[in-house]
Amino acid sequence: MIFSQAHALALVELLGVLAFAFTGIIEARKKNMDLIGVYTVSMITAFGGGTVRDLMIGHYPLYWVQHSGYALILLGFAVAAAPLSSSFYENPHITKIFIVLDALGLGLFSAVGAGVAHQAGCDFYISLLLGVVTGVFGGVIRDIICNEIPNVFRRNELYATCAVFGSAVFLICLYLSVDELSATLISIAFTVTLRLVSVKYRVKLPF
Amino acid sequence: MIFSQAHALALVELLGVLAFAFTGIIEARKKNMDLIGVYTVSMITAFGGGTVRDLMIGHYPLYWVQHSGYALILLGFAVAAAPLSSSFYENPHITKIFIVLDALGLGLFSAVGAGVAHQAGCDFYISLLLGVVTGVFGGVIRDIICNEIPNVFRRNELYATCAVFGSAVFLICLYLSVDELSATLISIAFTVTLRLVSVKYRVKLPF
Amino acid sequence: MIFSQAHALALVELLGVLAFAFTGIIEARKKNMDLIGVYTVSMITAFGGGTVRDLMIGHYPLYWVQHSGYALILLGFAVAAAPLSSSFYENPHITKIFIVLDALGLGLFSAVGAGVAHQAGCDFYISLLLGVVTGVFGGVIRDIICNEIPNVFRRNELYATCAVFGSAVFLICLYLSVDELSATLISIAFTVTLRLVSVKYRVKLPF
Repeated sequence: MIFSQAHALALVELLGVLAFAFTGIIEARKKNMDLIGVYTVSMITAFGGGTVRDLMIGHYPLYWVQHSGYALILLGFAVAAAPLSSSFYENPHITKIFIVLDALGLGLFSAVGAGVAHQAGCDFYISLLLGVVTGVFGGVIRDIICNEIPNVFRRNELYATCAVFGSAVFLICLYLSVDELSATLISIAFTVTLRLVSVKYRVKLPF
Repeated sequence: MIFSQAHALALVELLGVLAFAFTGIIEARKKNMDLIGVYTVSMITAFGGGTVRDLMIGHYPLYWVQHSGYALILLGFAVAAAPLSSSFYENPHITKIFIVLDALGLGLFSAVGAGVAHQAGCDFYISLLLGVVTGVFGGVIRDIICNEIPNVFRRNELYATCAVFGSAVFLICLYLSVDELSATLISIAFTVTLRLVSVKYRVKLPF
Repeated sequence: MIFSQAHALALVELLGVLAFAFTGIIEARKKNMDLIGVYTVSMITAFGGGTVRDLMIGHYPLYWVQHSGYALILLGFAVAAAPLSSSFYENPHITKIFIVLDALGLGLFSAVGAGVAHQAGCDFYISLLLGVVTGVFGGVIRDIICNEIPNVFRRNELYATCAVFGSAVFLICLYLSVDELSATLISIAFTVTLRLVSVKYRVKLPF
């Protein structure tokens, strides 16, 4: 049982990283960046959130430095995606799949981020914040590089708010002595559900 | 005497943090950000300068990670400020009070920042630079996130220049064996005076 | 022989730092920044790439913190450059000299950056990436502060691509047991040649 959960997590991680990288590719292409720009923005979108978290708590080595396979996978991904036209990205079926994968990534990164901060000795509230940072700051840096006001801070459907609740659910599970793998999966399920419901019904923050 | 100075410093810190956070709230609201955006920008404005300084010298744990009470206070502050209209922020009385509080924060952060760098073994000039970074880089990151050229780099009334002189006064006091609390208060008085005089008489750098 | 190579490297370093700082001064002046802004942007352009690399691997103390002489040299440089008109920067002879110096800086920083990452235990691919980061991220942060989409990500003549090949040449030399000074000089020669050829013949990435 634990074994299959670990496998599920590894798959979610790969899908989440690719979905995050994909949003970077889309934004970079919209800005007419070349392959170097597309690759850099996709790397920063996928690993920027975890990197900011690790810098805040002095947690080394960074994940992508230690697991360099991901940097190579994203290189292949950026090369493969480069010749695709922007109409591909606007295909509604692609958009739907992409929103689900992105929600999976958001859920995983928020839970794992909160867990790393908690293990580093941060208290509940700072762990919660650093979980959210892990989930959303890759996108924040992506938008800053692409010269936009970060999308996550605007009044769209709930996004960072999902990460807030996801991190909280993960940490509460830990305090209730749920094992970490189960806590992660429960938290991801919560975040993904909240995110997809808010997209479907266009839920926004009141202010 | 030392006792009351320490209390004065704690009060200045709270007022300075709140003033810095307030400028973040104003800018974020101007850009129509939601509560998450307002809170993030206010946190970054208040603690971004000190965080950049600490990253430059590898100084852990970060202040706001260790003192998580501030992150909660700013959350309450962002929630309370959210429903206020922008006309509130443009009230000239509020603006005046705000300029004084912001000057207090600038003075404190520059002095404390120079002191932290000095204690970490940086020489006079690098300590001076890191004092200025502590005082002004929260606002720099705020403006970058809000998609503006950082205000502090434009030809307005003196701002970073006040932090330069404030940091220098603090470090010179230390070299003259003034105790750290007194050096901080002297430096703050110097920075605040210079800042308020430059606002009143619209002093700018010649180039 | 080793001795003269070391001297050549020190000279290249000074010229590279000044060339990088100079691009920062030009961009900051275009945006009408004051002396504080010009100085900050020139410091970030010159040392931003190496600083980001060092933060990624937790490598302290930072170069510019330890060698504070550079921060003072750039201060003098920013003050001296401040009264120059923008027509000075647009002079074609200045532009040509500047492109050569900038290419030297790019070559040195990419080689040295890859070397630092390699010594810190990063594998070939991550060392390559961090070499490129060292060469180009100062310019990336410069452009972000100046509220532009980073120039290096746009379809111009090859720039980051030169850093990619330069870092690779340096690392391959190391793996072939070439001594580090010679590897650095070979790598710089390669990067500078590729950069100047691509500027002369307007070579771009196919996508």
